[in-house]
Amino acid sequence: MIDLRSDTVTRPSAGMLAAMTSAPVGDDVYGEDPTVTELEETVAGLLGHEAGLFTVSGSLANILGVRALSAPGTEVLCEASAHIARAELGAHAAVSGITTRTWSAPAGQIDLAQIRALISADLGPYFVRTAAVSVENTHNFGGGSIQRSYDVLADELDAIGLPLHLDGARLWNASVASGVPVSAYASRAAAASVCLSKGLGAPVGSVLVGSTELIREARVWRKRLGAGWRQAGVLAAAGLYALQHNVDRLAEDHANARLIAEILADAAPGSVKPDQVDTNIVVADLAATGKSVPEVVEAARTEGILVGGVGPTQLRLVTHLDVSTSGCRRAGEVVAGLLR
Amino acid sequence: MIDLRSDTVTRPSAGMLAAMTSAPVGDDVYGEDPTVTELEETVAGLLGHEAGLFTVSGSLANILGVRALSAPGTEVLCEASAHIARAELGAHAAVSGITTRTWSAPAGQIDLAQIRALISADLGPYFVRTAAVSVENTHNFGGGSIQRSYDVLADELDAIGLPLHLDGARLWNASVASGVPVSAYASRAAAASVCLSKGLGAPVGSVLVGSTELIREARVWRKRLGAGWRQAGVLAAAGLYALQHNVDRLAEDHANARLIAEILADAAPGSVKPDQVDTNIVVADLAATGKSVPEVVEAARTEGILVGGVGPTQLRLVTHLDVSTSGCRRAGEVVAGLLR
Amino acid sequence: MIDLRSDTVTRPSAGMLAAMTSAPVGDDVYGEDPTVTELEETVAGLLGHEAGLFTVSGSLANILGVRALSAPGTEVLCEASAHIARAELGAHAAVSGITTRTWSAPAGQIDLAQIRALISADLGPYFVRTAAVSVENTHNFGGGSIQRSYDVLADELDAIGLPLHLDGARLWNASVASGVPVSAYASRAAAASVCLSKGLGAPVGSVLVGSTELIREARVWRKRLGAGWRQAGVLAAAGLYALQHNVDRLAEDHANARLIAEILADAAPGSVKPDQVDTNIVVADLAATGKSVPEVVEAARTEGILVGGVGPTQLRLVTHLDVSTSGCRRAGEVVAGLLR
Amino acid sequence: MIDLRSDTVTRPSAGMLAAMTSAPVGDDVYGEDPTVTELEETVAGLLGHEAGLFTVSGSLANILGVRALSAPGTEVLCEASAHIARAELGAHAAVSGITTRTWSAPAGQIDLAQIRALISADLGPYFVRTAAVSVENTHNFGGGSIQRSYDVLADELDAIGLPLHLDGARLWNASVASGVPVSAYASRAAAASVCLSKGLGAPVGSVLVGSTELIREARVWRKRLGAGWRQAGVLAAAGLYALQHNVDRLAEDHANARLIAEILADAAPGSVKPDQVDTNIVVADLAATGKSVPEVVEAARTEGILVGGVGPTQLRLVTHLDVSTSGCRRAGEVVAGLLR
Repeated sequence: MIDLRSDTVTRPSAGMLAAMTSAPVGDDVYGEDPTVTELEETVAGLLGHEAGLFTVSGSLANILGVRALSAPGTEVLCEASAHIARAELGAHAAVSGITTRTWSAPAGQIDLAQIRALISADLGPYFVRTAAVSVENTHNFGGGSIQRSYDVLADELDAIGLPLHLDGARLWNASVASGVPVSAYASRAAAASVCLSKGLGAPVGSVLVGSTELIREARVWRKRLGAGWRQAGVLAAAGLYALQHNVDRLAEDHANARLIAEILADAAPGSVKPDQVDTNIVVADLAATGKSVPEVVEAARTEGILVGGVGPTQLRLVTHLDVSTSGCRRAGEVVAGLLR
Repeated sequence: MIDLRSDTVTRPSAGMLAAMTSAPVGDDVYGEDPTVTELEETVAGLLGHEAGLFTVSGSLANILGVRALSAPGTEVLCEASAHIARAELGAHAAVSGITTRTWSAPAGQIDLAQIRALISADLGPYFVRTAAVSVENTHNFGGGSIQRSYDVLADELDAIGLPLHLDGARLWNASVASGVPVSAYASRAAAASVCLSKGLGAPVGSVLVGSTELIREARVWRKRLGAGWRQAGVLAAAGLYALQHNVDRLAEDHANARLIAEILADAAPGSVKPDQVDTNIVVADLAATGKSVPEVVEAARTEGILVGGVGPTQLRLVTHLDVSTSGCRRAGEVVAGLLR
Repeated sequence: MIDLRSDTVTRPSAGMLAAMTSAPVGDDVYGEDPTVTELEETVAGLLGHEAGLFTVSGSLANILGVRALSAPGTEVLCEASAHIARAELGAHAAVSGITTRTWSAPAGQIDLAQIRALISADLGPYFVRTAAVSVENTHNFGGGSIQRSYDVLADELDAIGLPLHLDGARLWNASVASGVPVSAYASRAAAASVCLSKGLGAPVGSVLVGSTELIREARVWRKRLGAGWRQAGVLAAAGLYALQHNVDRLAEDHANARLIAEILADAAPGSVKPDQVDTNIVVADLAATGKSVPEVVEAARTEGILVGGVGPTQLRLVTHLDVSTSGCRRAGEVVAGLLR
Repeated sequence: MIDLRSDTVTRPSAGMLAAMTSAPVGDDVYGEDPTVTELEETVAGLLGHEAGLFTVSGSLANILGVRALSAPGTEVLCEASAHIARAELGAHAAVSGITTRTWSAPAGQIDLAQIRALISADLGPYFVRTAAVSVENTHNFGGGSIQRSYDVLADELDAIGLPLHLDGARLWNASVASGVPVSAYASRAAAASVCLSKGLGAPVGSVLVGSTELIREARVWRKRLGAGWRQAGVLAAAGLYALQHNVDRLAEDHANARLIAEILADAAPGSVKPDQVDTNIVVADLAATGKSVPEVVEAARTEGILVGGVGPTQLRLVTHLDVSTSGCRRAGEVVAGLLR
């Protein structure tokens, strides 16, 4: 099976497993796991922040980060198909009492005019107060797109004193593709999350970064949400290994995604624009092909290719370190055949 | 003072006060206040629903209605400047754990294409599920506008089995202006709220309507939110009086709003389009006038006219039964003078 | 019908209704209702606090007061049958995210040893933190009992810097019965609620008191919970009237309750101890009588007497200004007959 | 260092690490990690339930289990020092909107009379409804005690249709010490949690068991709380290894705890009753010794012994597989010396 449903499906390599079994561990609820601490400090350093917190998922890193910037009864603005709005099961409202208002934009991009119109200054105790703006970079359901106006938005928010939240689940992809260091992105945000278990290939884990005070509070809430963990160093070791070995190679995933996009665009013109495939995600719109998403997903499966549906007419293929270029080519050809 | 900040500022008339003091009352927490019961049954009947619940505010009626159609961790879709999204202090997330995703449209209108794109069918346990769509009719911050595509949306939602929530705080205005009976609007919604203390002139109170089962549950949650009340018949009597005496006369408020809009459009062309003033609210955009909202609000106040700011460049004037046509003309002229 | 189910069933008198219709009113959401403001200042003054907030119920005043002293994820300690724990439908957890741990004591009394054992100092970020202790005085389900150790507890909490919350729904009863001014009770608490619609006879309303800052925040949360109200002065006027006319006469209710208790104790020795009936509530335990609560409630109803069940074997009779001494005697005799 | 602060501090053994690196893994968010599935099925089978869910902590298993049995605005009854009430940071209220009322009993035992008095039947929509009773077995802060009246309570709850929640973080200890199979305990509960990372020595993880439907819903909420995980099989393998190798040996921990208790009782009579040390936890009360908890904790540390404070005068020592009998004897002697 060639599995392109998500870059979350990667399995730890032999080298990574060896790192996991040799790492020193301790009780992280007591703050005593040296490998967890090393990972948290390493990532915080890379991202230009004071402190980090190792979490069981990117969703949890987002829950804790958004919560730290907001308060029950306030709102966070984000794009309507952002992961925090669409793919975290309403957690920010259900768990933290925080609501969202959203803008919609092609490829999940920042839309400055819409954001300006949405921001709710403090007009008196009748209106919801905007507590933060959240941006996903790269944007998953936007097709792995890199945010074009990230710095402009960050500047504008700085000017009015509104914090930026960065959902950087795939920030490494943005950085490798753009050449912009991850710190240049993350340091603009008051809180940022990055994921180790997507393109980087670790089995489990994300890291939230922010100020020492923000992370201290996030640590308490991590425990309150039942997500404190004990000898988590076995997992943190995988994350450290991933940072050392699997970042630069993301460029291959990006080339593979572009390759798939070109094959699909050839077969079904307009379904995807290859030059807009910034990183490792291809979202193809089947609307013009006359094929349904479940039908194509199922037919591909019978040919050994796993892909996913992420909307009524949207098919998603995600490249990663467990699928080679030839595997990606084959997957592209199979799906292309189904779209013709 | 001529107070056009909102139609919530109306004071009970002598006739209304007389009705309030002669009404039989009882303990409504025990379901024993006959005047409350009469109001609830009357409004439910008018709106084409099985049952009603008398609430202390329109916000509360919305909180209870939205909650009844959703569940913690689900989402409700609404326009970005809808009252439930913008002017209820994030209550639906903070109190009920329900999140929103929003579309933006001129005059707060229903935008079918955007709504279709936002609706999140059940794609598996990763995506937030859309539990309902909420529409405000008339739309307050949209300038008291009547929804043009209300029935089309209701048909589409029916077809996919998604409930509609109607925030009808000013539904009487929509009905009087359009000639469409309130029941024709409200019966399309699974839950609808209407307000007695805005244009209708009662001192306090709204009513939520829905099925018997929905209202039974809403009654328990009203108590849980601390908003059960005892001899509320004194207020319900005002609501019944308002329904008998103050509905038809809303047409005067609408004419007065149009008059103000024409005066303002004359003085500051483009700030408001009089033919888009559907009911009793005028929202003027000061962007092109070079005047700031706080400056105009303050200058008007010194001339005895109270108006409000509802956005960075937006001024709102609301007509109601406590301000006569000549008062409205005077208010329009004062503000027009300030915009020139 | 002689209705002794609760002192909430009282109906406004002619004098009270006259006060309600002549009071000046305004839009209280804008802070412009002069009668509401007068009530809030009057009650704050009587209770020795800086500021007050008029709320639709005692439950709401408690929700806002407890919330102001706590935070999501902290706990409040209270007696297990306190109104906030037993009769507010879990609101403090459901709405505010605050949990309770409870002690149990005869007559709902403060139990210093148990409280000391429960208080959770800050032992590190693993244990829930006690944010406040809440005391109900008089204690409704404890049989209208006055707290014996109120000042001792207040002193102990002062010493360790833990705030006291006072649910004073029937604080006027405690004061009239004990001769202790309400301010002597309420000023010991960081937040206190008192009710106008129980023994005082107003149709609707309670008041929360606290510091200016606490009340400012509570006002925002009152709005967030959908319980801001507009021309609430019509109700506040009833509250002011009640304070002027109906406080001292509570002594009659207390004498009437004692009378009922004596009649019941005579008929069913041990079911109630008359000398422990501190104020206007009689809770009789039917365990030894062999009668069931629903059976007695129903039989009394057929003889024109309404009483309530508040536990598996507990019958409650509450005296108030709408039932005379002879009415209470008759009610006592009817129930006594049923217990024999 | 001899670390007796908790049995959570254990580190994975070489055999366990080998099992972790050789286990097949997959994406558990997609339900495709075979080792996770094997663990969930194995534990469900052992505990006599239909289905299981692997969670990052015992707290999370409790949050999900309690939530599944209750609803926002209902209550769960538990002992006042139960882990869910005292050591989960108020999560059940903060995250799930569920409140607790509590009883207090020596050694955290079930107190049938108090529980009967607390259970709130459905007396009408004014009173909080008891949704479940939760019991911790063994009871951590009760000194690792086994519940004496577990079956009697389960029978009583069955009779009135109220579900039992079992916090079985150390249920293996209860079973090994009592000879009662874990299934005999867990099958009485509608939801039960067990922990793999305490006495069993796995680095991370607990399992919630219940009906297929309950677990299906808990799985969605696990994701909503941000605690879905990807290739969690590396951790599940440790859990499976622990079940195969580390259950029977808990008897050694129990003997070691008894040994420590005897040494302490000798040195400070009354501080601990050795015959009440049921399993692997010794809670010593320093009240009569004149020593403070922080002082003893610190002095022990300087002699290479780590112990913890769990209350104003309470010291806790927990035995586990990483400390031998001679280590426990030495720890006991050091602490005994400090208490004399």
